[in-house]
Amino acid sequence: MPKTALIMIEFQNDFLSEKGALAGAGIWKRAKDHNTVGKMKKVLEAARKAGPDKCLIIHSPIGFREGYPELAKTHPGLLKGAEEAGGFKKGEWGAEITDELKPLSDETVLDKRRLCGFTDTELDGLLKNLGVENLMIGGFVTNWCVEATGRSAYDRGYHPVFLKDCMDAFTDEEQKFAEEKIFPVIGEVLTSDEAMAKFL
Amino acid sequence: MPKTALIMIEFQNDFLSEKGALAGAGIWKRAKDHNTVGKMKKVLEAARKAGPDKCLIIHSPIGFREGYPELAKTHPGLLKGAEEAGGFKKGEWGAEITDELKPLSDETVLDKRRLCGFTDTELDGLLKNLGVENLMIGGFVTNWCVEATGRSAYDRGYHPVFLKDCMDAFTDEEQKFAEEKIFPVIGEVLTSDEAMAKFL
Amino acid sequence: MPKTALIMIEFQNDFLSEKGALAGAGIWKRAKDHNTVGKMKKVLEAARKAGPDKCLIIHSPIGFREGYPELAKTHPGLLKGAEEAGGFKKGEWGAEITDELKPLSDETVLDKRRLCGFTDTELDGLLKNLGVENLMIGGFVTNWCVEATGRSAYDRGYHPVFLKDCMDAFTDEEQKFAEEKIFPVIGEVLTSDEAMAKFL
Amino acid sequence: MPKTALIMIEFQNDFLSEKGALAGAGIWKRAKDHNTVGKMKKVLEAARKAGPDKCLIIHSPIGFREGYPELAKTHPGLLKGAEEAGGFKKGEWGAEITDELKPLSDETVLDKRRLCGFTDTELDGLLKNLGVENLMIGGFVTNWCVEATGRSAYDRGYHPVFLKDCMDAFTDEEQKFAEEKIFPVIGEVLTSDEAMAKFL
Repeated sequence: MPKTALIMIEFQNDFLSEKGALAGAGIWKRAKDHNTVGKMKKVLEAARKAGPDKCLIIHSPIGFREGYPELAKTHPGLLKGAEEAGGFKKGEWGAEITDELKPLSDETVLDKRRLCGFTDTELDGLLKNLGVENLMIGGFVTNWCVEATGRSAYDRGYHPVFLKDCMDAFTDEEQKFAEEKIFPVIGEVLTSDEAMAKFL
Repeated sequence: MPKTALIMIEFQNDFLSEKGALAGAGIWKRAKDHNTVGKMKKVLEAARKAGPDKCLIIHSPIGFREGYPELAKTHPGLLKGAEEAGGFKKGEWGAEITDELKPLSDETVLDKRRLCGFTDTELDGLLKNLGVENLMIGGFVTNWCVEATGRSAYDRGYHPVFLKDCMDAFTDEEQKFAEEKIFPVIGEVLTSDEAMAKFL
Repeated sequence: MPKTALIMIEFQNDFLSEKGALAGAGIWKRAKDHNTVGKMKKVLEAARKAGPDKCLIIHSPIGFREGYPELAKTHPGLLKGAEEAGGFKKGEWGAEITDELKPLSDETVLDKRRLCGFTDTELDGLLKNLGVENLMIGGFVTNWCVEATGRSAYDRGYHPVFLKDCMDAFTDEEQKFAEEKIFPVIGEVLTSDEAMAKFL
Repeated sequence: MPKTALIMIEFQNDFLSEKGALAGAGIWKRAKDHNTVGKMKKVLEAARKAGPDKCLIIHSPIGFREGYPELAKTHPGLLKGAEEAGGFKKGEWGAEITDELKPLSDETVLDKRRLCGFTDTELDGLLKNLGVENLMIGGFVTNWCVEATGRSAYDRGYHPVFLKDCMDAFTDEEQKFAEEKIFPVIGEVLTSDEAMAKFL
């Protein structure tokens, strides 16, 4: 059973395409400038090659049902912003995972409806059941869903490994803050190359 | 927002068809003798007619990925029995919901991997977020997944409404025990007709 | 780190004394007739002797704050019955653990407010963190808090070991049903002597 | 039932006294310079005066049992740092809440063992059961336990109200980042005076 999991957070069209509902947030532009998807893809391919006994591959997109019932009582803030922009509607193009990282049929896809990938999902149960310890995390947005998932991972006893070149924040300042002030205090901060060498 | 939800547990081919992987457990035979699916269907149709502001419709099938990774460290018992029988494989016919109760595209389907419908699923988050209070529960098997879900519902502050003619146990004795000794102590025990009159 | 934990559920004066708030439920009488506390005590002493690397000792009493705020929105049923009887008020004699099984200062006491010992408590986090696998369970009431905790333990990946002579139901019929129909399907059913020989 | 709760995180001697086990982290110095405890005390007194139907008062200290069993399998990082410093040992002076904010006997004290106040505690169950919506949060350390609790509160459907003058970070830069970049995106950021005027 795998000791390591790769969690890819919100690599979806609404973030990554210039035509996505959340394009205004500019993640697509920063991801393009940094080749974030290309780097994530290298890790994904290495994980696929390493095989399921070495690394569990988890896609963690966000998605809402028609009418956003999951956010009915949610207070203003980031999630409501996604609703107002009409983003991440399950079953539509915008919520789909970007073509370069399309899940294979035997990979695990865990839809989430909150910032943290553990909230109200199967994630903790699945990882604990398999005995996974290390969580390599990439995706969007660095200070939000990525950090929320990493913080919760630490609290639940996992070792978060933050793939610093496989994620983007809204600004350089925010990316830098997460990389330097938050992530090292609860886990490891590695480049994709370093992480592949160490865990795959 | 709906005050009531209908939770239909494991109305799947592996239980309900004579050709299902779990046919040996005899649920298909008991369900046929009692017209359990027909009665559940009447409630489902009434819930559909009542509309989403009155009743949230939730299908709660059980399903496992290739190789049953969700059960890797699970100890012997009912779940391992399902694995040994090759039951409830996601994406295969046996794990599909029976034709009579096929989910509509706007209905909520929450896969589970455990006996209780709340364990490691979105169920509690979704219900709390919508303010649902009453949970009408039917399905299989009365003393197992149905009872586990009802017990947990009570512990989480919901009012379980057990649809006694929309569920089956392995034996009459077990059905009777749940109906008389367990369910009334933590919720209401109603026939489908009584429940439709009261909650839909 | 211990592979086994002993969980003692609701060995409290309100259940076990003729003067307890819940004396009307008759548990004190059945426990006296069956020497249930005496048998539990033998297991507790064996667990103390085995030491913390062998067995984690957990006391799991139920208790409510002044005014029962934990049950504010709870629907009728067993928990509300405890409130109506004025039972299990934290800090009062009735909620205290019976003298024979009084926790030592280095033993873990996890207050609960629900039927299941896992609901809203530290239990799962603590056990997973220590790597505990086997849960020896005794206490009151067999079909309620004991069974709820055992069912949830199984769902969370533990191996429940039901100490059948260290628990009591409200009636013989109910005790027999749990012992014969429920417990063996999700775990082991042992006498206290058998369990001590196997796990301590 | 109260719509608002006040959550006071880790106002404990190990942080707030020059003689505390964690004094090296310098929180005591910053809290002294900013009169953080004095401001928190004003809010606490206002909440006490407003009464339990207006505001639920929750003390959220961190504490570990002898030998830190709660951290047995925890990976390096902030929590392990507390263990290495011998901090927050339950029952000892360092883990006690500072005299100025000593809990009254009818106030809720919820021990935690993790960064987030929701992880493995009764907090969510209690708040949901009472129907609490607004969580006024103060304490230590701004970017760690305070932020972790606030992020999780938002994910669970609450409205976090960050009392910006009732908390301290390790540095000005970190405090500023939380106040300006994180908290406003998931809740309200108020001074203690503003919060008292609005919620008490």
